[in-house]
Amino acid sequence: MFRSRKKKQTRKDVHVAQLEAIVGPTEILYEKEDLLSYDCDGFTVHKAMPKAVVFPKNTEEVAAIVRYCSVHDLPFLARGAGTGLSGGAIPLNGEVIISLGKMRNLLSVDYENRQAVVQPGFVNLKLTNSISSKGYYYAPDPSSQYVCTIGGNVAENAGGAHCLKYGVTTNHILGLEVVLPNGEVIEISDGGIPDSPGYDLMGLLTGSEGTLGIVTKITVRILKNPQGKQTVLAYFDNVEDGSRAVSGIISAGIVPAALEMMDKTAIEGVEAGAYPVGHPKDIDALLLIEVDGIKAGIDEQIEEILAVCKSRNVREVKVAESEEERGKWWANRKTGFGAMGAISPDYLVQDGVIPRSKLPEVLKRISEISKESGLRIANIFHAGDGNLHPLILFDSRVPGETEKALEAGTACLKACADVGGSITGEHGVGIEKKEEMRFIFTDEELEAQTRIREVFNPDDLLNKGKLFPTPSRCMDVKKVVKDTVAAK
Amino acid sequence: MFRSRKKKQTRKDVHVAQLEAIVGPTEILYEKEDLLSYDCDGFTVHKAMPKAVVFPKNTEEVAAIVRYCSVHDLPFLARGAGTGLSGGAIPLNGEVIISLGKMRNLLSVDYENRQAVVQPGFVNLKLTNSISSKGYYYAPDPSSQYVCTIGGNVAENAGGAHCLKYGVTTNHILGLEVVLPNGEVIEISDGGIPDSPGYDLMGLLTGSEGTLGIVTKITVRILKNPQGKQTVLAYFDNVEDGSRAVSGIISAGIVPAALEMMDKTAIEGVEAGAYPVGHPKDIDALLLIEVDGIKAGIDEQIEEILAVCKSRNVREVKVAESEEERGKWWANRKTGFGAMGAISPDYLVQDGVIPRSKLPEVLKRISEISKESGLRIANIFHAGDGNLHPLILFDSRVPGETEKALEAGTACLKACADVGGSITGEHGVGIEKKEEMRFIFTDEELEAQTRIREVFNPDDLLNKGKLFPTPSRCMDVKKVVKDTVAAK
Repeated sequence: MFRSRKKKQTRKDVHVAQLEAIVGPTEILYEKEDLLSYDCDGFTVHKAMPKAVVFPKNTEEVAAIVRYCSVHDLPFLARGAGTGLSGGAIPLNGEVIISLGKMRNLLSVDYENRQAVVQPGFVNLKLTNSISSKGYYYAPDPSSQYVCTIGGNVAENAGGAHCLKYGVTTNHILGLEVVLPNGEVIEISDGGIPDSPGYDLMGLLTGSEGTLGIVTKITVRILKNPQGKQTVLAYFDNVEDGSRAVSGIISAGIVPAALEMMDKTAIEGVEAGAYPVGHPKDIDALLLIEVDGIKAGIDEQIEEILAVCKSRNVREVKVAESEEERGKWWANRKTGFGAMGAISPDYLVQDGVIPRSKLPEVLKRISEISKESGLRIANIFHAGDGNLHPLILFDSRVPGETEKALEAGTACLKACADVGGSITGEHGVGIEKKEEMRFIFTDEELEAQTRIREVFNPDDLLNKGKLFPTPSRCMDVKKVVKDTVAAK
Repeated sequence: MFRSRKKKQTRKDVHVAQLEAIVGPTEILYEKEDLLSYDCDGFTVHKAMPKAVVFPKNTEEVAAIVRYCSVHDLPFLARGAGTGLSGGAIPLNGEVIISLGKMRNLLSVDYENRQAVVQPGFVNLKLTNSISSKGYYYAPDPSSQYVCTIGGNVAENAGGAHCLKYGVTTNHILGLEVVLPNGEVIEISDGGIPDSPGYDLMGLLTGSEGTLGIVTKITVRILKNPQGKQTVLAYFDNVEDGSRAVSGIISAGIVPAALEMMDKTAIEGVEAGAYPVGHPKDIDALLLIEVDGIKAGIDEQIEEILAVCKSRNVREVKVAESEEERGKWWANRKTGFGAMGAISPDYLVQDGVIPRSKLPEVLKRISEISKESGLRIANIFHAGDGNLHPLILFDSRVPGETEKALEAGTACLKACADVGGSITGEHGVGIEKKEEMRFIFTDEELEAQTRIREVFNPDDLLNKGKLFPTPSRCMDVKKVVKDTVAAK
């Protein structure tokens, strides 16, 4: 399957031959036609061709590839399923792509200590499917969980609808085996220890977007299925009321497993998509709210949620009557981004975070950005933790509209940063939001981060050009010892 | 209060005079008699005299002191309430101690977004006391919470009895202002964002034991009080049954807010201490179990906990009948370490972590270590998360017994490491467990950590000689690029 079809050998140079010697002839791609699928990831605005794609089968092969690249100054990067939305796996410098797609086994499950060990290429949802018969599941649930890999989840510190209650990937990682950019293999493990000794390297690696090392084995926390869960759908005539209901639910002391919101344009999209639910088209906002836990507590929480919604002028509110109905509501939500394709030729997903209390203010600003740019913006997002996903609808065939969409996206992020929020909640920075890092970090703060990168990656061969603003605007800034007292 | 009483001026050199110029004459100690209280922290086995102790009132003064020390090559370190148990605040190199004790204000509380901003010297319990009238609390609750400071909690990533359900300090920190060792001030904030962009500097700083920077402002998460809580006390005739009850409760899918255990010797100690409860003296183990949350769910969980205890041959099990009774049980537990003073002239607290399923095996090993050393060992610990606290009872007046106690402590940590556990759960490494870091980290892994330290702290002036094994055994190891493939 991975053997190149034409043996023109034009691209098979000495490096390719050496890499082939490490992984074997069936586990490397290097001809142009084979490489085309690897020129971008889920962020399709930029494309670049890799030098080759290799498919190691174990840690030793990954380490050998990395050592070869390191010694021969070949840029390289790791890739999982390529579903990342910020361009973290795009080979900007003609990298050797190390695909972890063939390291896709569930290595062990320890139910007693609630841990599972997986290879990085193991698909997220497969873990829950593998342990659900015993009553367990893996909590982080990005919308792409049907295809995305846990290795990629670690790189991006992936979130998901249920992260409001259960936390993001970093809260579920108990151990990592990592190949460092010089080819050394280290194990980082806390075995579920509350405060493991030394620096928190595991936290540092998680979410480092493939810039510090390549994860080759992952120990994750698994959770016991909650006794019960219940889901509520609430329709509001205006966004303001919906936003206030979100705050109201949290203020009531309830921590829902999920608390999702869609606005009018988003509803138009999902209803035109593959999983319509029959939402009324004239509402301004809907909330999808799920609670889980001990059965006895669920009914009480649902009662309280209904009361909050009513006090916020909800038009209609209903509780899922069956697991099937619940499943339909979630399919409608989880396929929401893709559904925008039904109402727009193109769309750009943005990902910003704000304090929950700023929701009405920022949604209003996004609606102004929409008017200013002349582009429709749909909002479909994790309202409970203030993680916005403005979907900017545009038509790339109309000259100038792509640029307008990118500008509108940046304006949305600026709006988030301006209220004390952040430029990414779960999609990462990659190449998409490098420059926007300046919205929230000073030069000193960026330098502290890039210096950490240099420790791991002194030759800058691993996933170069990601995560931080370009050198000309950051790294070359002359280092002046600031007289902080004088400055203040 | 801080003015030195005798003006011999023998120790007032040019550096002291310059530091005095920064903080003012009432905010510096430098005479020997004034410095004596600062020669150790809660780890009293080692002592060393600081050069001076300064009491800055704000971030600018901290930065100015740090810059002065940095420029003049004076070693320095930060100190909170000095309750740390591993020696992290001991001035091994005659440091200038920067006490954060006068930066002790609660700066703001934002109930809507559930955040509070405190100065580092603010006492842990004061935060809960300040917000409890509004129905909120701060979760991390180290036993020293009456005196320890939140700045110190950040440095040590402090835990506590209720961390089983709510997580340790790092799970409750939303933002930090940090003075770096060169005097630069940076802000690290995720504002409660699930996955903040860039590297997780906040996670890296939290638990770095004062070796990377000095925290001058902290934004923490505050939580809504649970609707209800209920507490159970269970007595067992043997430790094995008690351990199996711990696993049984967790396996039942319950996550108690706390799940504490004491063995026979510990019970003897707490009953001889200031807060006796009347525990039977002939039992082998007791469990103190607390559940909290939605009222409706609590009764159901308590029923299940009682059933698990009964199935594990519990001798007696009772539910607290009043808030007063609950308070007594907790006072008995939280003052447990100190209570050992009633049955032994000296004691050494150890702090190791193991997978929950290894509890019976490791407790048996600790009992062997007790026999081998001829010293009694009491166990009083966070059983739910496998965080052991062997208390080694000894008499420092008996020649050789202190050494025996230290050896027994190391043997306990080795026993934890041998079953895949760790050498510290919440007390940190400090100077106490530097060499034991080798039980769980390879040279490569230690080097990855020390290289991060060098990034922040290139001149090694900040809290030197802590956290990592001494250079002769670690840093000077010749760096050989390992051929991992060949080695395996």
